Amino acid sequence: MSLEAIQYRRGSLSILNQLLLPEQLRYEPVDSVERAWEAIRAMEVRGAPAIALVGCLSLALELEAGAGPAGDATELEAFVDERLRFLLTARPTAVNLGREAERLRAFTHRRAQSPGVTAQGLRESIIEHIEGLLEKDREDNRSIGAHGARHILQRVPEGGVTLLTHCNTGTLATAGYGTALGVVRALHEQGRLTRVFCTETRPYNQGSRLTAFELLHDRVPATLIADSAAAAAMRDRGIQAVVVGADRVAANGDTANKIGTYQLAVAARHHGIPFYVAAPTSSCDPALPGGADIPIEERPGRELTHFQGLCLAPQGIDVWNPAFDVTPHDLITGGIVTEWGVFAPAELRQALAERGGAGAGPSPPKSSV
Amino acid sequence: MSLEAIQYRRGSLSILNQLLLPEQLRYEPVDSVERAWEAIRAMEVRGAPAIALVGCLSLALELEAGAGPAGDATELEAFVDERLRFLLTARPTAVNLGREAERLRAFTHRRAQSPGVTAQGLRESIIEHIEGLLEKDREDNRSIGAHGARHILQRVPEGGVTLLTHCNTGTLATAGYGTALGVVRALHEQGRLTRVFCTETRPYNQGSRLTAFELLHDRVPATLIADSAAAAAMRDRGIQAVVVGADRVAANGDTANKIGTYQLAVAARHHGIPFYVAAPTSSCDPALPGGADIPIEERPGRELTHFQGLCLAPQGIDVWNPAFDVTPHDLITGGIVTEWGVFAPAELRQALAERGGAGAGPSPPKSSV
Repeated sequence: MSLEAIQYRRGSLSILNQLLLPEQLRYEPVDSVERAWEAIRAMEVRGAPAIALVGCLSLALELEAGAGPAGDATELEAFVDERLRFLLTARPTAVNLGREAERLRAFTHRRAQSPGVTAQGLRESIIEHIEGLLEKDREDNRSIGAHGARHILQRVPEGGVTLLTHCNTGTLATAGYGTALGVVRALHEQGRLTRVFCTETRPYNQGSRLTAFELLHDRVPATLIADSAAAAAMRDRGIQAVVVGADRVAANGDTANKIGTYQLAVAARHHGIPFYVAAPTSSCDPALPGGADIPIEERPGRELTHFQGLCLAPQGIDVWNPAFDVTPHDLITGGIVTEWGVFAPAELRQALAERGGAGAGPSPPKSSV
Repeated sequence: MSLEAIQYRRGSLSILNQLLLPEQLRYEPVDSVERAWEAIRAMEVRGAPAIALVGCLSLALELEAGAGPAGDATELEAFVDERLRFLLTARPTAVNLGREAERLRAFTHRRAQSPGVTAQGLRESIIEHIEGLLEKDREDNRSIGAHGARHILQRVPEGGVTLLTHCNTGTLATAGYGTALGVVRALHEQGRLTRVFCTETRPYNQGSRLTAFELLHDRVPATLIADSAAAAAMRDRGIQAVVVGADRVAANGDTANKIGTYQLAVAARHHGIPFYVAAPTSSCDPALPGGADIPIEERPGRELTHFQGLCLAPQGIDVWNPAFDVTPHDLITGGIVTEWGVFAPAELRQALAERGGAGAGPSPPKSSV
């Protein structure tokens, strides 16, 4: 069975404690919003879609167990609002959770205002809305995988493909399957993946700790490399395509993603290797004209200078530790792989406009921290 | 005072224990060839030039203290030969030590054959030969620094320069000053260095553990970045030149150096930033036509999957861990900085031929492990 960050059925929620990876594979029950808050705060679960899902599902769990006022829909709405506000304090940068909370609040308000709605009816429809998020994320990822695989194989009429990916965009960051790793999985399921090289992705090592872990678990042929070895792998190890995720895609296709993505795109261009960004349309923001408008979070230097309390660098050294970088659209030579299909960066704006704009669906954008 | 890997005056040798960096700055006495062997084996000292120097200096120390036969020059030659053979067993890949041992053996043999040579006279000339190595390496590095700084400043008529470097090529890897870091130091001494960005240099972290340490110690303005952040730094942080060391330079200028060097050269080309290789001519090998002839060492995967016993990746993941990569000469757009001056890669072969070929001087090539 494929690894899952989140195991949910109505009335029951468990998460894989990612703090213990790769040493231990342990699922832990999440039986309340408080417990979800702790798990998000402590980074037992990470990846923006997974965080949003665990937060919302913990609320569904409480509602299913009968928490909150029973008599009045408006009182239940107030209860939901309070729980969501609390969840949002777990991680200030959990933008996906913020977006989902906003949508859930709007949904709850509309329903609470419907004529004749009961607290019980409202309770049930909120639970269903939340369960739909999980399903939608999985479906979107499967669609991304299928579209991406088909596009890559257009250039490779037969035999296997060797890919390179960065950071973690798999089952551990999403409801399942993954975005860039969804493309990898789709090729593997079709028997067309020769091998995927995954970078270790310093400084947080999502590649070595998480991606290598889930690929090994799912028996996908994978090789771990230092971030520095990517260009050498492109030249000497037969990489045929690079596929990465996205934190945010601007209207012109410029893409913010984990630091190092830009460097990989430059190296891919140098080697004439197609470079793909795989992300749900909910990660595309038509309101942002270009990458210059995407704010880049700078993280504490300690991520680079320490590892689990061990010192890797001298005390007092200046550090520049941007969490993300922006890859300009002209380096995204393969295309932007969404649940609707693969778009050249120049086609994205129109596709989003025609299909109702970004963020239309409830699927949260992928984040790779 | 500048940091030194090796502190030597006649009769006394100490080394900075690099295993304790960056946590502790501790010099340890080396009072015998056996102790030098242990220090090299345990990697208390690393960097090919530094290894070669510590090995040879420990022999000078024994000779100064009167070790070995006193009566007969030929017997002393045999003693020197035996000590060198033993030293070479410390690290099988210590090619510089091997080369210096070979030269020292040849020198000793010639002197032992000279008419009228006494054991005492031979002893004294061996000690002087070895002391000369230390001086030559320092002088070569200062020349490299001066030539490199001058060349870089040709493009920057006034104000400071922002550089990027990789791995450790400084006082900790050489007799002092450094090769690529020699260029950085020369600019700093001239008041023309704005800042140097140093990569952490996975998987062995020579950048964060050693380069950051020596730059901070010497108060050179330095910023540590993840290897992945180099292209972003070139674009967003105003890098004006990239300077790296070399393990080996082929006749056409193709250069083997620490893994990641090639990726930096590709990124520098993309940004139109001059890319320099700084190395003594003894690292240039006119017998090697091009980079394809340079064997690339692949190191154990454990370097990438573990850190001081802690697990960074799942047990059993396949790893590709090349220690070096080859940067083709056409990406070395700044030039190759030697103790004789800065050469375009295409000029190197002729320069080596005119000046008596590579390896003419006793200075060992720089290595960055």
